[in-house]
This record gives sequence, structure tokens and C-alpha cells, in this order.
Amino acid sequence: MPARPSAGNLLYAQSGGPTAVINATAAAVIAAARRQRGKIGKVYAARNGIIGALREDLVDTGALTAAELAGIGRTPGAAFGSCRFKLRGLEDSRAQYERLIAVFRAHDIRWFLYNGGNDSADTSNKISRIGAELGYPIHCIGVPKTVDNDLVVTDTCPGFGSVAKFTAVSMREAALDVRSMAESSTKVFVMEVMGRHAGWIAAAAGLAGRKADEAPHLILFPEIAFDEARFLAAVKACVERVGWCAIAVSEGLKAADGRFLAESGGKDAFGHVQLGGVGPRIAQLITDRLGYKNHWSVADYLQRSARHLASRTDVEQATAVGKAAVEYAVAGMNAVMPVIKRLSHAPFRWKIVPAPLAQIANHEKKMPADFIRADGYGITSKARRYLQPLIVGEAPLPYGADGLPDYATPKFKPVKRKLPAYAIVDK
Amino acid sequence: MPARPSAGNLLYAQSGGPTAVINATAAAVIAAARRQRGKIGKVYAARNGIIGALREDLVDTGALTAAELAGIGRTPGAAFGSCRFKLRGLEDSRAQYERLIAVFRAHDIRWFLYNGGNDSADTSNKISRIGAELGYPIHCIGVPKTVDNDLVVTDTCPGFGSVAKFTAVSMREAALDVRSMAESSTKVFVMEVMGRHAGWIAAAAGLAGRKADEAPHLILFPEIAFDEARFLAAVKACVERVGWCAIAVSEGLKAADGRFLAESGGKDAFGHVQLGGVGPRIAQLITDRLGYKNHWSVADYLQRSARHLASRTDVEQATAVGKAAVEYAVAGMNAVMPVIKRLSHAPFRWKIVPAPLAQIANHEKKMPADFIRADGYGITSKARRYLQPLIVGEAPLPYGADGLPDYATPKFKPVKRKLPAYAIVDK
Repeated sequence: MPARPSAGNLLYAQSGGPTAVINATAAAVIAAARRQRGKIGKVYAARNGIIGALREDLVDTGALTAAELAGIGRTPGAAFGSCRFKLRGLEDSRAQYERLIAVFRAHDIRWFLYNGGNDSADTSNKISRIGAELGYPIHCIGVPKTVDNDLVVTDTCPGFGSVAKFTAVSMREAALDVRSMAESSTKVFVMEVMGRHAGWIAAAAGLAGRKADEAPHLILFPEIAFDEARFLAAVKACVERVGWCAIAVSEGLKAADGRFLAESGGKDAFGHVQLGGVGPRIAQLITDRLGYKNHWSVADYLQRSARHLASRTDVEQATAVGKAAVEYAVAGMNAVMPVIKRLSHAPFRWKIVPAPLAQIANHEKKMPADFIRADGYGITSKARRYLQPLIVGEAPLPYGADGLPDYATPKFKPVKRKLPAYAIVDK
Repeated sequence: MPARPSAGNLLYAQSGGPTAVINATAAAVIAAARRQRGKIGKVYAARNGIIGALREDLVDTGALTAAELAGIGRTPGAAFGSCRFKLRGLEDSRAQYERLIAVFRAHDIRWFLYNGGNDSADTSNKISRIGAELGYPIHCIGVPKTVDNDLVVTDTCPGFGSVAKFTAVSMREAALDVRSMAESSTKVFVMEVMGRHAGWIAAAAGLAGRKADEAPHLILFPEIAFDEARFLAAVKACVERVGWCAIAVSEGLKAADGRFLAESGGKDAFGHVQLGGVGPRIAQLITDRLGYKNHWSVADYLQRSARHLASRTDVEQATAVGKAAVEYAVAGMNAVMPVIKRLSHAPFRWKIVPAPLAQIANHEKKMPADFIRADGYGITSKARRYLQPLIVGEAPLPYGADGLPDYATPKFKPVKRKLPAYAIVDK
């Protein structure tokens, strides 16, 4: 039997929708933990987030070479698998928490780093409290990640800068296309973007244009109830003035009664309504009512997995939170998250500081009202000042001889199970 | 009055849907024509393709600086505006042809270079014949461009390589995302791609994977009638075997009766049905019948305007056809198109040769049957051998301090009108 490291092992896991840079965080966590040889024993990762932790489905990242780790760091998706799974309160799901602590105990896991958004911060916070209650102190660090940019306290969430850059670049590119077709064909282009409750990504589309009448001409935010007549009048005025009209619409656009314009019917594991399709609906409305030929796009996963167009700022921040999470862990912190604190807009300066998970879990950062232009269809200079630095810089990839980015999906070394199998019943 | 160049002027125009690299061709045409100082006088461009030629809406590219020309060359969209407008036969539209020749005569235009697809080759060919009939010999050169890759004779069409690269990279990236979500959330991802009648772009998605069970797991080609039951069985088998399923579907997918699965109702100026929306329909079908959570994307204009992800091979070929078009023009050729002739697959070698427009106009290159796997859901090694070289190489852009590509849309210097205004009535 190998000697047990004196201070125990670290477990890293990924949760929620991936980002283009979540694996930059993963690679940074693993690299930083490797540098803590005397303090941290093994660096494990759970497959599919907390689900893998419950199932004792762990991998040993110590088997990864430096080249494999670098490859993971530049690859989109969640390298270890992610999940949509939220632990309930201890009173509802005592068996689940007991199982989790049993897994931690069996593998001498003393630090749990959970890389995700609101729900994951909540999960980390609960595990931290309940570990202590069950007599197994575990240091839980939440590591921020979400394209939605909806975590409170932190200036931004790693992942958002890259989806913002993809959105702004795509809008600029597609607008050049429609502009050149408008004389005799397509006059209206509608681009649907992610953002369930807050218009952060829709706002980022606004970075594509700077001067008056540059695309996007209209942005439909989830914060502003959709007014069909006023919107159609704005589209018509734009086409008559500019010759064409490029529109960004958030998937979370709501009618005056608060209902989503596009409910696809399904719900996810958290009971959130699955959205998608408001873009084509808005496009069809315009053609039906104004007669303009339309094109529409829904980038969906393309926008959050486009590592080929990642923001260098975002990659740097994703790396920094991973590194800080390990430093906080070995410093004995618990139930905290490394968050980004902006020091100045221009030049853009920031640092990483710890924030209590209790302040972050289950809160949602709304976009400030003064980020939206008075007419409701664009962004203000204040929004631009906040957003612009987040998309600055490129993070070019190595490409293979096949013309594709050199992404890595190495096989992981499973950690030998020590406990009986466990079926997750209340998914 | 300035001295008239002895040999007359050249007119360049753009037609049909833009590509990521059509302006690389435009910049190459202008640069090559500038090098023919003694032979070619002014280098004009028509705004919005043949529409601008009819309206005498021309610009003088001589006013563009070298930096502006370089900027245009790396910018997506059609820099001078494009159109969907097809000239009819002389018997139907004598007045239009007479007007066109009047414009050419008024501005001493001796060479007309029309950058487009099938319809533009037809237009160029007709103008060439009819100019001679009307006593105004004009040298017409078709310059190939189309993301659809559906021109005959040429090995490929500039523009296709870049949309193929975008499609393959996007599929690989999005697949990494769904792979990491599949355990507890999305199990099926459907990506709709362009390609009305031929599955070239859908086939390019196949480049994202190489080994068995790598994404895309299923490709739906317009060449293969959609068989719902067989398809659903294949999706189910894939999810059960792999854990998830990534699907590429061509917008031109047809039912067994030959009808498009997704007809959005509108028709374009050529009477073509406007497509879009088969992706979400397939995704919904899967969820309804198999219960898997889905995500779907329709990149639409994003795929053909993504200059940030252009194929270097494509940029090189787009540049080469522009240069050759001018060389053919000054060599006195007429009613020809510079086409790409492949000399070898590996190493990939090609050259530009002239081909008669009459062989190209109004024909459509189908994808060879042996490019599609026996089960109808994938590509063969023969397809891969053809497609792979077209996406090789990157063509990185300069980015600005704002984090966006440094695209250029300079103001053009209009050419003074000499003729009465002309209303196009039969658009």
C-alpha cells in the first residue's frame, strides 16, 4: 500500500454548461496543486461533476503528462464531464451527503474545488457546512464559471468574455454579409444569443458597432418586455434609414406578462424551462408583418464552445481563478470563491480576491438598468466601458495538419473504487 | 477632360451570397488590374452586382489606398455589395441588355469580371454573347465564388473551403460541449448547415471526426431521402453506445417525396425556396420520439462570413482566381472562368486554368455518390481525401484594441454618371 500523503488529497469537479475556457481553469487547478507537493497528495477529478463524486467515479490527474495537461487547458467542453445536478438540503437528502462524505473519507479528500455557477456555489457551500456537521471537515472552494455572467460579487465570470467576443465578432461578420445582400435580398438578420434571465450576452453583441447605425441596430434584452408594435416600427425605420437591420435577441426575451417568447417545452434538471427559438420567431414576425426577407441564426453551443475565438483576457482570468482556488485551499480557507475584482477600466486592471460562497450561492447578478439605452434597444457607454476589456486579446490555438484545432481528450486513469456502488435515485 | 486610357476600363462586380473570402478575390482583381497600367485604364466596381451596372452605380477603385485594399481583402461580406438578380434571355429583356451595353459604352468598359456562382456565370455568358450581337464587344470573365461548392468543372469554389473549416471546427467544438453534458442533460446536438441541393457543407462536418464514434455521429445529406424510423433508430443506437449523439443536417434535407423538410415559405429573386429550420425540426422530433434532451444550432450567415476562421488554402485559391481573371482578360479571353484544377491530393497541389462559361452556367455539381457512406449517414475516405486539403491552414487576422477583427469598409469614390437614370422594373 502506498504511503498516504500527510495532508490528504484534492478533488476537482466541473458543473453546469461548459465554457470555452473552463478547462483553462481545470489545467490551472491541477498545475497549481502539483506545485503544492508537500501539502496536497493526489489531485483527483470527478467525472461529470458531483455525480461522479457520489458514484465514486474519480480519475487521477497525476497520470497526465504536461503536454496532456496543456492540451486539456486549451480544449472547450468540460474535460472531466459536467452535470446539471443540485444537491438538496441535508434534511431532504441526508443519504446523499453521507455518501459524499463517505467517498471523501475513503479517498482522503480534504479539499473539494467545484467549478461552476450559482448552483455549484450552493452545492459547495452546503457540502462545506454538512461535512463539518458529519464530523468530516472538508475545505470547499467554489471556482467561478459561467457564460451567463450572472454571479454576484465577482466583476465577471470566466467564460463570459469568450462568449462575448464570439457574439460581437459574429455580429460584425454576419452584419457585413447582410449589408451586402440588402439591396435585392435579405434586409433583416436576427441573431439569437444565450442569456436566460440577464442580457449580458445580448449586450456584448452591442460591442460589434460603435457609431450610429452600425450593427447591431437593435438588441432585444430579457430585461425589457417585448413590445411588438414598437419593435416593428423600429425595424421599419432602420431598414428605411440604413437599408437593412441587424438584430440581436436574447433567448430570455419575455412578453409583457413575463412569459418567455420562446418556450421549447422541456425543463432541465433544475426545473428551468429549456429555451431556444425566439430568433426564428422574431425573424418570421418581421417578414410576416413588414415583408422583409430575413435570415436568422441560433449559435447555441457554438457560442460557448468557440475556443478558437476565445478572449485572451478571459483565458487569463480563467487561469487565475484556478490558481487562486488552490492557494486558498492550502491556506485553509473554506466556503469561499476566488472572484475577480476590477481595479480600473482603462488600463484594464484586476486582481483575484476571496469571497464567501454564502454571498454568491443562489443569487443572480442582473444587468444594471443604466447599461441599457433609454430606448431599450442598445447599450450605453457605461455598458461598453464594462464589457469592452473582457473581449480584448486573442488566444490563438495550435492547429493540426488536418486544419482543425489541436484539441485534447486524453484517456483518464480511473481511481480504484473502495466503496459499494451507489445509485443516484433522485436526479 | 482627362486622357482616355487607350485600351479601356475594367468593371468588377459581386453576385449572390457572399463568402468569407470573396473580397480576397476582389482585392486580387484590383491589385492585378493595377499592375496592367498600360493595358487597363480605370478599375471600376459596380455596387450591388449587376444591379449597379444597370443603374450606372459604379465606384472607382483607383481611389483606394494600398492599406484600404488590404483591409477589404480580409473583410467578409461583399465589399461592393452583392445581389440576387438574374438577367433573362435577350428576347425577354432586350431593354436591360441595351442599357447594360450603354453603361459599358459610356464608361469605356471593355472587361467585365463577374464574381459569383451558377447564376452569375450565366449572366456573364449572356452579356458576352449579347455585347457582340449589339456591336459592343465586351470581354466577360466569370470569377468563381460560392460556399455551396456546386460549380461544375472547377475542383472547388473559393468560399467553400472556409465554410467547410467553420463547419468542421464548430462541430468538433460543440461536440466537446455536448459530450461533457450528456451524463445528466443534453444527449443530442443537431447542427444545421447550408447546402440547398448538394451536401458538400454537410460532408465537411464529417471532417470533425476521424475514428469510429467520433462526432458527427450522423450526417443528414440532401442526397439521401430522410427516413424517419431508420434515423431515429440510428440516433437511439448511438446514444446507447456512445452516450450522446452529434448530428449535422443539411438545410436541403428532403423527404422521400422530394419536398424539403423545412420550407420557410418565402422564395428568393430566382424563385428558389428560402430554407431554414430543419435543424430544430429534427431536434424536436428526436426529443418527442426518444425523449432525449436536445440542443440545436443554425449558424446561417455566421458560417459563410466567419473570416476569422478562414481556411488559408481557400484564401489562396480566392486570391489566385482573382489574379488569373485579370490575366485572362488582358490576354483577350472571353466567356471563360478561371477554375481550380487539382493536381494531387497529398501533397495538395493545384493550378488555375480557364474553362468556358458555357460549360459552367446553369449546371450544378452534385456530390459523387461514393462520397456518402453506405449507410447514408457519413462520409467515405474518398470524400475525406477530397475535402481535407480545402480546410488546411489558417489565415489569421489583425485584431484591434477593441478585441474585434480589423475589418475595413472604406467609403468608395462614385463614378460620375453620364446617362439618364434607369429603373429596374423586372426584379
